Amino acid sequence: MPRRPIPSEMLAVTLGRYGAPVTTGRLPVPSPGAGQVLVRMAAAPINPSDLASLEGRYANRKELPTVPGIEGSGTVVAAGPGLLPRLLLGRRVACASSPDAGGTWAEYMVTSASLCVPLQRGVTLEQGATLLVNPLTALSLWDIALHEGHAAVVHTAAASNLGRMILRVGLEKGIPQVCVVRRPEHVSALRALGAEHVLVSADRDFVDRLRALSHELRATLLLDPVAGQGAARLLQAAPAGSTLIVYADLSDEPISVEPRQLFFEDKRVRGFYLQEWTSGMPLVQRLRLTSRAQRLLGSTLASRVRRRLPLSAAGEGVAMYQDDMGAGKVLLAADPEAVPLDGV
Amino acid sequence: MPRRPIPSEMLAVTLGRYGAPVTTGRLPVPSPGAGQVLVRMAAAPINPSDLASLEGRYANRKELPTVPGIEGSGTVVAAGPGLLPRLLLGRRVACASSPDAGGTWAEYMVTSASLCVPLQRGVTLEQGATLLVNPLTALSLWDIALHEGHAAVVHTAAASNLGRMILRVGLEKGIPQVCVVRRPEHVSALRALGAEHVLVSADRDFVDRLRALSHELRATLLLDPVAGQGAARLLQAAPAGSTLIVYADLSDEPISVEPRQLFFEDKRVRGFYLQEWTSGMPLVQRLRLTSRAQRLLGSTLASRVRRRLPLSAAGEGVAMYQDDMGAGKVLLAADPEAVPLDGV
Repeated sequence: MPRRPIPSEMLAVTLGRYGAPVTTGRLPVPSPGAGQVLVRMAAAPINPSDLASLEGRYANRKELPTVPGIEGSGTVVAAGPGLLPRLLLGRRVACASSPDAGGTWAEYMVTSASLCVPLQRGVTLEQGATLLVNPLTALSLWDIALHEGHAAVVHTAAASNLGRMILRVGLEKGIPQVCVVRRPEHVSALRALGAEHVLVSADRDFVDRLRALSHELRATLLLDPVAGQGAARLLQAAPAGSTLIVYADLSDEPISVEPRQLFFEDKRVRGFYLQEWTSGMPLVQRLRLTSRAQRLLGSTLASRVRRRLPLSAAGEGVAMYQDDMGAGKVLLAADPEAVPLDGV
Repeated sequence: MPRRPIPSEMLAVTLGRYGAPVTTGRLPVPSPGAGQVLVRMAAAPINPSDLASLEGRYANRKELPTVPGIEGSGTVVAAGPGLLPRLLLGRRVACASSPDAGGTWAEYMVTSASLCVPLQRGVTLEQGATLLVNPLTALSLWDIALHEGHAAVVHTAAASNLGRMILRVGLEKGIPQVCVVRRPEHVSALRALGAEHVLVSADRDFVDRLRALSHELRATLLLDPVAGQGAARLLQAAPAGSTLIVYADLSDEPISVEPRQLFFEDKRVRGFYLQEWTSGMPLVQRLRLTSRAQRLLGSTLASRVRRRLPLSAAGEGVAMYQDDMGAGKVLLAADPEAVPLDGV
């Protein structure tokens, strides 16, 4: 492939105010500093964490205006000073945006070399675009479940892209799980994937059924990205000694915890944040995790792509994704036609 | 001391309905079964956990009517079949009531031999009456703090009997602590005990001051028996990575937890329940804990006794204690005159 010259300007999505719609315009192509690389972006998904980020509800609120986009994939086309950046030059990578720089929804992004993972042969740039958030979360949550020795697991938002990954990883591990979905129409899709226990949280007898099932299976780990009243009900229904791990707050609501559940029933509440989790790992372990995830990207950890849109349609993409997050990923791409065909 | 014969009837406090006032009357003296002993009670305190119990808000709701009272002290005067009961016969003990039998607010109590701790020479029956709840809780909470390596600790209800014990144990360990009290008039009493940081939760700048202080001291362990909104504020003000341990719910209110604090700030919420904690211990460790507590009963772990009342005045005692739990312990005794003088 002939090397394309790096232009001085690029197309990029811009967020000017938290909560406001995004726009697409032209910005200067940034230059990588020490320890950084410049990635020519191929594709970037819209994730629930991006939606939170657009509303200013994510971990680090960047100074505005900024380019949104937490993860994506592309090719490293320039390297700042440092060994790691030089090693990555020319490599196809999955990449996450750096807290102190712009995001992945652009033709080019500067990020820390340590936030790039070289893609294995056989992994497409489209697959790589969704490597770093959902697949690593699904594997890490199961690693926690196994490490802590839970006999079974309850997880909510099970019809979402991540929920299905959690389901499939759990099926491979052979650990019983209870999938909780909001709408009855999602039940059959999860059953088709192999889910044995699927409960609908809108059902009147939901809490009773969840209580009976989670006690029977000794499901003492609850994985929840919704928070709010739903999480409180999960905890109530859970057996004594259960741990609720909250990893997102799709409901944007607090969780009301009954104190007696804490001290008389030894129930516990904590969080999971992928970036903290992986950054706390020794490098070897992190490489093993990303390598394991890549090998499963075509199967267990495949994302369903609903639509590929150009950067200029980012606003439309956000609205489309927000409207039905269970319908598959919306990908933003510099060249939407090229992405699915991109070489391996 | 000549052995007194065991009568067939005894004076005992009775709870006929949860939430109703207690009465005092005559009941048959119970007989110990296998693994059990009969204790001639000397004294029993009214604890916050007793108040919760009277309202039916404690771990195990006993079948009514029942004799209330969770801990106390006395002399083992009869033993059921078993080695441990026989070993305890004639010994002065601190004792806790068994979930399947009556409580300590009576002239006699049958309980499991494993719930009795022989008192050391030098420990009076009055001191022993309050050995098993507050002192073991104070020591255990600090054991947790040390084991988990917290640099400093925040604790609430610090003017209570248990709060003062926690303060004194912490002072001996030399670990910085932030004491939280509800009323400004408690500040000077805690300062007199040696507390360096005392905050009043009713102050307008309380949360700001707590935030500044807990970040400065890296106080990542919060010990709270109040729950409700106060616990939520503690967690908000705490540094990232903090753990809130709730060990009672004096406010009888749920705790509203902001999910982002869980996943972005790695804050955790769990409970502490002394009975679960000690029953999970190897026997040797439990004996070491109770022995350590007994040696400190005259100093670091001394309870302030506000009033000694006969069993017939139990209702009055409950009201008196409920009215001001910071003013010292109310003890119920078969013979209130004898208790403080009881031999060692």
